[in-house]
Amino acid sequence: MRPSDVFDLLRDGQPRTRAQLAEVTGLARSTVSARLDALMRLGLVVPVGGVSTGGRPPSLLAFNPGARVVAGVDLGASHARAAIADLDGRILSERGVRLDIALGPERVLGWVEEVVHELLAEQQRDPDELVAIGIGLPGPVEHSTGRAINPPIMPGWDRYDVPGHVQRAFDVPVLVDNDVNIMALGEQHAHLRDVDDLVFIKVGTGIGAGIISGGALQRGAQGTAGDLGHVHVARGADVTCRCGNQGCLEAIAAVPALADAIRAAGIELPDGEDVVALVRGGDQTAVQVVRQAGRDLGEVLAALVNLVNPSVIVIGGGLAMAGEGLLAGIREVVYQRSLPLATEHLHITTSRAGERAGVIGAAALAIGHVLSPESIDRAVDRSAAQAVVG
Amino acid sequence: MRPSDVFDLLRDGQPRTRAQLAEVTGLARSTVSARLDALMRLGLVVPVGGVSTGGRPPSLLAFNPGARVVAGVDLGASHARAAIADLDGRILSERGVRLDIALGPERVLGWVEEVVHELLAEQQRDPDELVAIGIGLPGPVEHSTGRAINPPIMPGWDRYDVPGHVQRAFDVPVLVDNDVNIMALGEQHAHLRDVDDLVFIKVGTGIGAGIISGGALQRGAQGTAGDLGHVHVARGADVTCRCGNQGCLEAIAAVPALADAIRAAGIELPDGEDVVALVRGGDQTAVQVVRQAGRDLGEVLAALVNLVNPSVIVIGGGLAMAGEGLLAGIREVVYQRSLPLATEHLHITTSRAGERAGVIGAAALAIGHVLSPESIDRAVDRSAAQAVVG
Repeated sequence: MRPSDVFDLLRDGQPRTRAQLAEVTGLARSTVSARLDALMRLGLVVPVGGVSTGGRPPSLLAFNPGARVVAGVDLGASHARAAIADLDGRILSERGVRLDIALGPERVLGWVEEVVHELLAEQQRDPDELVAIGIGLPGPVEHSTGRAINPPIMPGWDRYDVPGHVQRAFDVPVLVDNDVNIMALGEQHAHLRDVDDLVFIKVGTGIGAGIISGGALQRGAQGTAGDLGHVHVARGADVTCRCGNQGCLEAIAAVPALADAIRAAGIELPDGEDVVALVRGGDQTAVQVVRQAGRDLGEVLAALVNLVNPSVIVIGGGLAMAGEGLLAGIREVVYQRSLPLATEHLHITTSRAGERAGVIGAAALAIGHVLSPESIDRAVDRSAAQAVVG
Repeated sequence: MRPSDVFDLLRDGQPRTRAQLAEVTGLARSTVSARLDALMRLGLVVPVGGVSTGGRPPSLLAFNPGARVVAGVDLGASHARAAIADLDGRILSERGVRLDIALGPERVLGWVEEVVHELLAEQQRDPDELVAIGIGLPGPVEHSTGRAINPPIMPGWDRYDVPGHVQRAFDVPVLVDNDVNIMALGEQHAHLRDVDDLVFIKVGTGIGAGIISGGALQRGAQGTAGDLGHVHVARGADVTCRCGNQGCLEAIAAVPALADAIRAAGIELPDGEDVVALVRGGDQTAVQVVRQAGRDLGEVLAALVNLVNPSVIVIGGGLAMAGEGLLAGIREVVYQRSLPLATEHLHITTSRAGERAGVIGAAALAIGHVLSPESIDRAVDRSAAQAVVG
């Protein structure tokens, strides 16, 4: 039994007495008290007012999510969003701006540094209270080093040391991941905390997936897991994708392809984003095109359901705003093609976290690191050593 | 730091001194000694002869895999194999027989009970020395309860309490999983211990995959992850599968479909298994049919590579014996269709564990449970309590 085991019991936010904690853990009261003292010295656990049960009121202890803050940063192709959050992932302050990732790491990370300082000041938090930063990037990321690897839309970022840059301003752990991966974490953290097997699909300029299986984000051997956009689909066999291959899902079902299809039908469409507006305006061509994109996506998602067996598929990204048509096309194919046992309890739904999925997930990534059993045990060790020395 | 942390350091089989263990763990010598005493009381760690370095020989300690044994059982559609192994997964004795799973759980598990007793006697091991049993079943398994759920080829087994039955004879933990999952564990354990992201594909009467990602076997929400056989492939669009759907990979690329294709070409083929014999005999029709099956498989594996990003794909099952033709067809499509970043370091290979992958994996599943940090810490706790009482 480690200090983190006592702490993990308190993570749900429910206050408990020392006696309750001793009972659940099976540890001696004195051991539990020593653990709790260390956690209280760190500020992670605090006494809270309890209701009297006759005699003296029981001394209740609870997780104190306000003890420290983390930052979550979601960098997209042309937008950036940053937030600071408490240790329970509750967003305290946030900012969103249009910002082109192609400006390069110096300028984009300069913005990150500046805005995190602003957000801390806004919440009257000292920079020392910031304990970790999570960042999502719109390309393949080597999670262990925090570097983007051959990212197609990020000139100047290839293998750039993102954590090293950010740590010049903030001397804390910096966790970097792919943008769709942090969206999956964000949706789970905000709305699906009890779901261990979920897949988040982002459909916008490109198509990608963040896969959480058995409670853990799946990155794969090179960090490219979830690359849905370049899976082959029959209907696209004659279409050449920007990756050079033929038949990629992205080349027929991402927003630029849909805009092309709508224009080919003779409808004027000034710029890519307006596919959603057309659908919402009830344009029948646009509605049909989006529904067909749903079917194409469904073809790949049917394979994904058989291979990964998630219990929830969340559709996010710009095209998710097009509403039920996309979802209807997806469901039509997935429920027809996948096995009954895999779809019996499968929910397919649009993102509830929406545009904020990324920052919530980036903050959750940072919190996951700071409050991991290893980090907690190390912090308690250090605090115990200091208590002895002091 | 828990007792299991000291033990995990010794799992690699290298003998170490107390001083080395203290240095690596950062624990006090006295703490390390207390942990080691407990592990020695359990027999998991033993002193070994060390080479003198001048003064008195350093007292080396090492993991003792012979302390206990586990059983691994691989039940297929028409065969059964059982083995006992030491705690490092080394097979000590084994048996293989032809046995029809459709005989039902009473008779098949009766065989398991009998043969495990025989294998223990053969190794002069007391039944008390058996600490866990791993079992693979040829159908979907709910791993948490050890029951097969709606298995298509296992009459009488649906939701049958396999662990409960086996525990009437052996009062130890019984871990049950799908046969392809245990084959993936077996291949990893025997030949790919450093590989964290691998997929094992079984191609025989059916087609299935065992997926290990981030070092952990991925079972999915209902335990159906890796169901490759019913993913849709373009070439099979008009073929009806035994599942009732059209276009399933299994309906065109599993052994019965290949036998049909060979017969349709006018070649006599007495029974399903002989596809491999024909290929080995150099029959050109059979060679072509198997290569096309490889391409069909490659189509689904290309999607799997993009979604899961493994570093190794292992091809096993009966058809893997057909040699390079199958593999060549698979590689042809996977390397053409998947993304360069995902295939740059991807190896596609046939199983080296072969027919023994299942028993080795079933034993590894049992060992994984017995030597998990939780089990070790609990055992050390109990042993410490007994030391105080005694």
